[in-house]
Amino acid sequence: MSRQRLEHYLEQMTLDEKIAQLLQLAAPFYDEVGDEGQITGPMESLGITVETVHNVGSVLGVSGAEKVISVQQSHMKNNKHGIPLLFMADIVHGYKTIFPIPLAMGCSWDIKLAERSAEIAAREAAVSGIHVTFAPMADLVRDPRWGRVMESTGEDPYLNSLFARAMVRGFQGSDLKNDKERVASCVKHFAAYGLAEGGRDYNTVDLSERQLREYYLPAYKAALDEGAELIMTSFNTIDGIPASGNRRLMRDLLRGEWGFEGVTISDWAAIKEMIPHGVAEDEREAALKAIIAGVDIDMMTSSYVHYLAQLVADGIVDEALIDEAVMRVLQLKEKLGLFEEPLRGADVVAEREIIYCEEHRKVAKELALKSCVLLKNNDVLPLNKNQKVAVIGPFALSGDILGNWSWNGSTELTKNLAESMKVISPSNIIIAEGCSIDKITEPQIHEAIKVALKADILVLALGESSEMSGEASSRSNIKLPEAQLQLVQFMKQLDKPMVVVLFNGRPLDLHGVYEEANAVLEAWFPGSEGGVAVAELLYGAANPSGRLSMSFPYAVGQIPVYYNHFNTGRPKPSEDTTEKYVTHYLDIPNAPLLPFGYGLSYTSFTYKDLVLSSNEINETDSLQIKVKITNEGKLSGVETVQLYIRDVSGEVVRPMKELKAFRKVELAPGQSREITFEITEEHLRYYHSDFSFTSDSGRFELFVGPNSRDTMNAAFRLKK
Amino acid sequence: MSRQRLEHYLEQMTLDEKIAQLLQLAAPFYDEVGDEGQITGPMESLGITVETVHNVGSVLGVSGAEKVISVQQSHMKNNKHGIPLLFMADIVHGYKTIFPIPLAMGCSWDIKLAERSAEIAAREAAVSGIHVTFAPMADLVRDPRWGRVMESTGEDPYLNSLFARAMVRGFQGSDLKNDKERVASCVKHFAAYGLAEGGRDYNTVDLSERQLREYYLPAYKAALDEGAELIMTSFNTIDGIPASGNRRLMRDLLRGEWGFEGVTISDWAAIKEMIPHGVAEDEREAALKAIIAGVDIDMMTSSYVHYLAQLVADGIVDEALIDEAVMRVLQLKEKLGLFEEPLRGADVVAEREIIYCEEHRKVAKELALKSCVLLKNNDVLPLNKNQKVAVIGPFALSGDILGNWSWNGSTELTKNLAESMKVISPSNIIIAEGCSIDKITEPQIHEAIKVALKADILVLALGESSEMSGEASSRSNIKLPEAQLQLVQFMKQLDKPMVVVLFNGRPLDLHGVYEEANAVLEAWFPGSEGGVAVAELLYGAANPSGRLSMSFPYAVGQIPVYYNHFNTGRPKPSEDTTEKYVTHYLDIPNAPLLPFGYGLSYTSFTYKDLVLSSNEINETDSLQIKVKITNEGKLSGVETVQLYIRDVSGEVVRPMKELKAFRKVELAPGQSREITFEITEEHLRYYHSDFSFTSDSGRFELFVGPNSRDTMNAAFRLKK
Repeated sequence: MSRQRLEHYLEQMTLDEKIAQLLQLAAPFYDEVGDEGQITGPMESLGITVETVHNVGSVLGVSGAEKVISVQQSHMKNNKHGIPLLFMADIVHGYKTIFPIPLAMGCSWDIKLAERSAEIAAREAAVSGIHVTFAPMADLVRDPRWGRVMESTGEDPYLNSLFARAMVRGFQGSDLKNDKERVASCVKHFAAYGLAEGGRDYNTVDLSERQLREYYLPAYKAALDEGAELIMTSFNTIDGIPASGNRRLMRDLLRGEWGFEGVTISDWAAIKEMIPHGVAEDEREAALKAIIAGVDIDMMTSSYVHYLAQLVADGIVDEALIDEAVMRVLQLKEKLGLFEEPLRGADVVAEREIIYCEEHRKVAKELALKSCVLLKNNDVLPLNKNQKVAVIGPFALSGDILGNWSWNGSTELTKNLAESMKVISPSNIIIAEGCSIDKITEPQIHEAIKVALKADILVLALGESSEMSGEASSRSNIKLPEAQLQLVQFMKQLDKPMVVVLFNGRPLDLHGVYEEANAVLEAWFPGSEGGVAVAELLYGAANPSGRLSMSFPYAVGQIPVYYNHFNTGRPKPSEDTTEKYVTHYLDIPNAPLLPFGYGLSYTSFTYKDLVLSSNEINETDSLQIKVKITNEGKLSGVETVQLYIRDVSGEVVRPMKELKAFRKVELAPGQSREITFEITEEHLRYYHSDFSFTSDSGRFELFVGPNSRDTMNAAFRLKK
Repeated sequence: MSRQRLEHYLEQMTLDEKIAQLLQLAAPFYDEVGDEGQITGPMESLGITVETVHNVGSVLGVSGAEKVISVQQSHMKNNKHGIPLLFMADIVHGYKTIFPIPLAMGCSWDIKLAERSAEIAAREAAVSGIHVTFAPMADLVRDPRWGRVMESTGEDPYLNSLFARAMVRGFQGSDLKNDKERVASCVKHFAAYGLAEGGRDYNTVDLSERQLREYYLPAYKAALDEGAELIMTSFNTIDGIPASGNRRLMRDLLRGEWGFEGVTISDWAAIKEMIPHGVAEDEREAALKAIIAGVDIDMMTSSYVHYLAQLVADGIVDEALIDEAVMRVLQLKEKLGLFEEPLRGADVVAEREIIYCEEHRKVAKELALKSCVLLKNNDVLPLNKNQKVAVIGPFALSGDILGNWSWNGSTELTKNLAESMKVISPSNIIIAEGCSIDKITEPQIHEAIKVALKADILVLALGESSEMSGEASSRSNIKLPEAQLQLVQFMKQLDKPMVVVLFNGRPLDLHGVYEEANAVLEAWFPGSEGGVAVAELLYGAANPSGRLSMSFPYAVGQIPVYYNHFNTGRPKPSEDTTEKYVTHYLDIPNAPLLPFGYGLSYTSFTYKDLVLSSNEINETDSLQIKVKITNEGKLSGVETVQLYIRDVSGEVVRPMKELKAFRKVELAPGQSREITFEITEEHLRYYHSDFSFTSDSGRFELFVGPNSRDTMNAAFRLKK
């Protein structure tokens, strides 16, 4: 459809009709429209008229082909211009086939597979009638107190950018209009939502322009460069102004500097929330600030529909601003082919065939296998089928392993860990609950001890309930709940080999677990096939290969801790130094318990022969970095070879290490392979004090290794 | 002395001699100059020649009249221009008469008395030969993990500014040149040193320009406006560049925008530390960056003396930059009258008479009385002399109550708590150590129980050793050491009334103490007369009146928590809400355990009749706020009446509350007094998005109360 035709729509619409296109209503709204079209129930409080509903632009959270078809068909009857509704929803890590949570996905370092998971999520969502997903979340995270770290791929801008791009590709494909099994991607939350003060959700964000540009913006930008059609504002302030009313952020930077032409949408009620934030006295002022800032769609408040028309009438808002916003909404509908096919992919038959199909679940399992991170293993894993294994803990028999943002997932259909282990070792699995998530009772303890005493080895299935992470689920204490730590103590006394499997949505303080256990497997919330995947990993049917994409702090009092930090003027020479006037804590190390990039395998890899093609490059050269990786163990395994660089002296301080490249290599026992990385001057650029993105002549350190801590080092110079 | 004459000096000096004026050497240097003038010992590594030493501009940490006189006299002989040395030192909260640590001083809310303490500190330092003190520290603090919070007056820019001004007045007086009992004041650490990431000393600082200007800069600016002659760079980065090489900060803002004409000095070795920071490849580049940034004095590195001359010779540094810096150093010497009297106040006789004299100690006691904060009192305090009191804990008999930065203080001369209590109640005090700071033994426990059982009431004297706060003394865990928490548990089991007195340098997480005790008195490190003061407070010879100038977090996982935070878009309606999608932690409240401004008295005050003179003001009006305070108890007491304001809707988000004024009132039992505050449009100004400092028409909320939490509320409008 030509732009001309869209403009024709615009010309036909009254101002009120245009403004209604900028409103997004949630699913309950559609359940509350009575037969006569009157609005009932809680949604009534929004004060939206039926006429507005007939002209509304988009809807949130309505899904299922039958429902979507019915709502859309009814809408097409009621909308006099024949403008279809957009159906949007939070499809974050799968629709019904639930993949590991994004933080786990980040630990796979498997970009292709992440893309495939998004493709499957899109497919299931599309046949259910959804057009747009509010994903990927590209928020960089450094604070595990924040519940939404589960929805991020981690602390590294480069890795996050790769995943953000992959997810956009997976959701949108290469022909969004004609490929009806794809959905448009709305990247979120713009910007820097992950830096909520104190790790408390929705809290104030404060950071320098420098940090914003260098660390927090790249992944959003990557998603947009990949073609994400929408972007969502964040709940937080940036530079003292909530994102939804932040003209510098939304209009100057996003539209102006980046040239983004897609749709911007507020997060849920975020426009009206400018009132409690304290930058708007009332909804009228909130609407004014948001439209000026460049927010197209008002999600779930009546600020736009109640006040924009009057603001135009009063000459305060130029109608052209509204036309622009409406035009972007219409363009998105056009890009999705909705004018021609308002129902798009919604298909009750396909729904039954495609959703949660075996092919999809197979990918979910593959991603789960690759997302789990082996944190410790003192020769007790893998298990063998002849061992009597006691599976103990609140996650032994729990299907609550899908994680937050899996509203269409089914914990009932999800095979739990113990059940999955029994498939592999039918007669050697014994089970006890041990405790619930946060309570432990005498009978539970006695039962657990009884069961444990019969076993050769204990597998403690511990963690956080899925409600303990995700939106509005911040914790000030990031240890396992006390009841579970007690269970560990009771089990430890039995002096049996003990494996701990963790199901959780954030990096934890593992004191009370890590030392006590002989092996620790971080399973995160591994999704629909997670129980099966973890069982296979435990028994060695697959070899763990995940690598942490977020540091595990030594203690909550160490937050924030992340690998790509700056040096100080007084670095601590070593953890056991006795020097006083160096940067350190009196009571704990500076280093996290487990660093970014960390993860073990059942086999072991060695790094040798790190060779650089030169000790100097110029602006046109490239530097070849070769290193030889050998599988020294007795099992095949996948190693994730990581390359980091440090600019030793910059015009502004540069991180101690920055991930620049990585390679996943599968090696058979005894096999070696030489890996080659290539670095050019482009890799060495950064934002200078004037925000020019350039490189400097000088010395660079280069690090290659299995994680951000244990690296081989070399150095070279850039000569410009 | 005329500027002309100073310029004459400059003209006479070689470039090397000028540069030597910009060097500051530490005390050991002077102990290591042999009879022949050769340099020996560790200081040799600095590579400074004897000639440089003869031309050096200032010295750090040399004190004592005899020593200073000898060093200065010898210097005057060796310096061919007859330019005297400047003697600088860290006189932070007293020279030998030690006052409460600055954080405690902040809790006095007694600006006059703080000024008096600085005056006394200056007097003792001056007779010991010191010319400049590295104080006040005007760093705003929000993170109690950081050990140097002890050296700050707290979390509020307004209160910090008042104290910074008072300290400058106290140190410098009104006639620095002729009043030989004063010293020049060097405000520190410019800028935002208090925001060290993770509360780890020397760590990276990142914040927006907005936060910097609104919260962190005001107290430095206040000190400079009050006439502080020097300012010290901070160790941290600002906007990615260490302060000592930060031209925007030091030259554009400090010199340009603020017009500061005094001396800038690096913190210890901070110029050279630009190398590990990663903005200088070597000392030469460090020196270049620092001189360009506008750092006059290089404290304890050889960067300037080794490289500036060559940089001038190479045409990279304009000699005018060096001349400017030297001129400022010479001007400071002139302002101190050193050209006429190189020995200034140094006086071995006065030293004996003045230092630690009774008059000084009386003021130290008064300030200690006013700095202690009564945090809890369930009718067990004050003690009466007839009660048998068991004083138990590592601080019962410890003189380690001076706190960090009291290098001339004497713990031996300092009367400890138990001893001081015995003076009041000679026959009813029994004592046990209970535990050491961080260890508890069986015999200690048995002894403590034995002693406790004989008593009517227990006074547990607990806390941190002075080494646990201060520079390079960050803690990730801010509870009392575990041994002391165990002691509390043992004592609690005895079911006797229990008072806890805390000696410490930071707000603590008081779980394990606060609930368990019947009363808690926060004594901080109260200084030379602190033991006596605390004893008098416990027995009611004085009535506690201190108010927290820094919030006590609920837990370390809540940091940062401070009263003047922003609202969010989803504020928590109440601590016991069951709403999910509001800003909160799953496990702890949002509020600190004890808020800013909090503190109890042995009497009780009520607030009534809050009346505003109008519900609207304009730019020329003033608003009178009246409130009636009544002492409802049976003892005289001092109430600190606090006035806070919130701009309900700003162009940028405004804090929930901002302290705008306070009044300390002493009331006899039953006495009432009406307090009047006056607010004008000037109080309502803030930094807008364009950094204009103006006010907006609109609604303001006003809060009056005994702390930042428990307030009476009113509202008014500003109409412009």
